[in-house]
Amino acid sequence: MITLQDVKDAKARIQPIIHETPTLHSEQLSAICGNSLFLKGEHLQKTGSFKIRGAANKVIHAVEQGAKYVTAASSGNHGQAVAYVANHYSISATIVVPENASLCKINAIKGYNGNVEKCGTTSNERLPRAKVIAEVKSGIYIPPYDDPFIMAGQGTIGLEILQQLDDIDVVLVPIGGGGLISGILTAIKETKPSIQVIGVEPAIANDTYLSLQNKKITTIPATNTIADGLRTNQPGDLTFPVLLNYLDDLVLVSEDEIRYAFSFVLERTKQIIEPSSATTVAAVLFDKLGLRGKKIVSVISGGNVDIDQIEEFVVDTAHFPK
Amino acid sequence: MITLQDVKDAKARIQPIIHETPTLHSEQLSAICGNSLFLKGEHLQKTGSFKIRGAANKVIHAVEQGAKYVTAASSGNHGQAVAYVANHYSISATIVVPENASLCKINAIKGYNGNVEKCGTTSNERLPRAKVIAEVKSGIYIPPYDDPFIMAGQGTIGLEILQQLDDIDVVLVPIGGGGLISGILTAIKETKPSIQVIGVEPAIANDTYLSLQNKKITTIPATNTIADGLRTNQPGDLTFPVLLNYLDDLVLVSEDEIRYAFSFVLERTKQIIEPSSATTVAAVLFDKLGLRGKKIVSVISGGNVDIDQIEEFVVDTAHFPK
Repeated sequence: MITLQDVKDAKARIQPIIHETPTLHSEQLSAICGNSLFLKGEHLQKTGSFKIRGAANKVIHAVEQGAKYVTAASSGNHGQAVAYVANHYSISATIVVPENASLCKINAIKGYNGNVEKCGTTSNERLPRAKVIAEVKSGIYIPPYDDPFIMAGQGTIGLEILQQLDDIDVVLVPIGGGGLISGILTAIKETKPSIQVIGVEPAIANDTYLSLQNKKITTIPATNTIADGLRTNQPGDLTFPVLLNYLDDLVLVSEDEIRYAFSFVLERTKQIIEPSSATTVAAVLFDKLGLRGKKIVSVISGGNVDIDQIEEFVVDTAHFPK
Repeated sequence: MITLQDVKDAKARIQPIIHETPTLHSEQLSAICGNSLFLKGEHLQKTGSFKIRGAANKVIHAVEQGAKYVTAASSGNHGQAVAYVANHYSISATIVVPENASLCKINAIKGYNGNVEKCGTTSNERLPRAKVIAEVKSGIYIPPYDDPFIMAGQGTIGLEILQQLDDIDVVLVPIGGGGLISGILTAIKETKPSIQVIGVEPAIANDTYLSLQNKKITTIPATNTIADGLRTNQPGDLTFPVLLNYLDDLVLVSEDEIRYAFSFVLERTKQIIEPSSATTVAAVLFDKLGLRGKKIVSVISGGNVDIDQIEEFVVDTAHFPK
C-alpha cells in the first residue's frame, strides 16, 4: 500500500504543474442539507479534472527515469491529462481512444500535441493496445488508477483539503476505479483519522459497494451510468485494499439524484461539474448520510462535460425526485 | 451626477449584505486573446447577479428613512435582488413581473418571500403598475437603473476591482440601461483615470452606441438579443451623462459572437455566465479592441440562465464564427 510519505512526495513533484484548487462554500447547498458544505473544485484544475495529479506524478517520475515516450488508454480525462503533462515536459504521448470518441475529446488531446490512435470501443481493446505501443516504442504505459504513483498523485487533493480547511467532519469522494479515493484516504486517515471519509457510487455502478460487502474484488456487468467517470466494473487490485483498510462508509445514489444534483449545482453555484462529481453532492442533498451541523467537503472531481450533453443531464430543480 | 463619495458610501452601506466577488484569471482565454484576462465574477454574487448591489443601496437607504414596503418592476435579476434585500431587512416587497415570466424566476422571487404580481408583457405596463402599488401602500418604488443610489451601488464593483488588481489597463462592462457602467465609470475614472473603461453592447441593441454618436439619448425599436439583460431601448436620463463624460469607447458584438463566448467560457472555465455577460468576453475573443499584452478585466454581470435555455445558447467552439 502507498503511504502518506508517497503522497507528500507526489505533492512536491507535481506542485509546479498543477493548480491548488479552491474549496467553494455554498450557502444555498449548506442551508438545504443542514450542514456546512464545501466543494473541492477539481473542475477548476488544469485539463478540467483531478486526473492531471496522478498523471503528472507518474509521467514526471518516468521522465526522471529517462522516458521519452508515454501512452495511455482513455476516452476522457485521463487521456487529456497524460497528453498535457507529456507536452509540458516535451516528451511524446500516444493516447488510444475508442472509435466512437467525441471530436471534442480528440481535439482536446490534439490541443496538447498528443497523438491519437483509435482502437475498438471497449477498454479491453484499448488497454492492451496502449501497452503494446509503449513496449514497441520503449515508452511507459500510464495506467488510469491502479498504480502507486497515480494513487499518490490523486491523494494530494487530501493534503490540500487538510491545509485549506480546519475542523472537517466528513470528506465525500466519488468512486470509479478507486485511484482518487485510495489516495485521499491515505492522505487523510494517516494525518487525521477522526475525519470520516465516505465513498459515493452510482447505484447502477456499485462494484466497490459489492466488493466491500463481499470483502473481495467483485465484478459487475457493463453499466451505462451518466456518471461516465465511474463506469469501471471492478475496483483495482492496488486501490481496493486501501478502501478495505480505511473507508468509513460507502453510499449509493440514483441516476435521478445525480441529475438533480448536477442541475442544482449549475443553477445555484453557476459551476459546471461532471455527473461523476455530482454524485457527492447528491449524497448530501438526498441525505444519504443522515448528518446535521457537520462540516462536509464534497470532492468535485472534474467539469469536462460535452456542452451538447448538458440538456441530457438537466432536470427541473423545483421538483425533488422521489 | 453621482460622485466617488456616493460610491464609497454605497460600499459601506451594502458591505454587510453582499459578497466581495472574486476576479478569476483564465489562462486559456488569456492565451487566445494575447492579453491577461480577468473575469470579475458577479455571477457568484448573492442572487446570481450584480443587481443586488444597487438594490441593497437603495432599499437600505429607504429602510433608514422608515420605509416598510418596496416595489419593483422586473422579470429578472433586479426583481430577485429587491426581494432578497427586502426580506433580509424584514420589510415587504411586491415584484411586478410580466404575464409570461418563467416559473423559475417567479419561484426565485417567492423563495425570498417576495409577493409576485403579474401585469402585461412589456415594461411600459409593469413599471407604472409597480409605481402605483408603491404609492397606494406608502412604499418606495425601486427603479432598475436610472437612480443615483442604484448607480452608486453598482459602482462598488469598480472599487473592488481597484482593490483586487494592480496595474489594470482596461475594464470592459456590458451596457443595458447604463446603471452598471455609470457606477463603475464613476468609481474608476475618479480614482485612476488612466484605466480605460470600455462599454460593450449587442450590435442589435445599440441604443447607447447611437446615443453617443448623436450626443443625445436615442431610442431604438424593441430588440430580441439573447443578452436579455441588455434589451433596454435607450440609456437612462441619469446614466447617459456619466457615459458622455467618462466613457473611453464602446464596441459592438454580434449574437453569434455572444453565443461563442458563452460556450467558450462554459467549456474552458466551467462557469455559467449570462449571455449579457458573455458580451464582454466576446469583445476580447473577437479582438474588438485591437489590444495585446494588456491587463483586461471583463465584468461578468450575472449567471442566471434558465437551464433549459442553455441549449439555445451553445455552439461548437471548434469553429470560430466569421
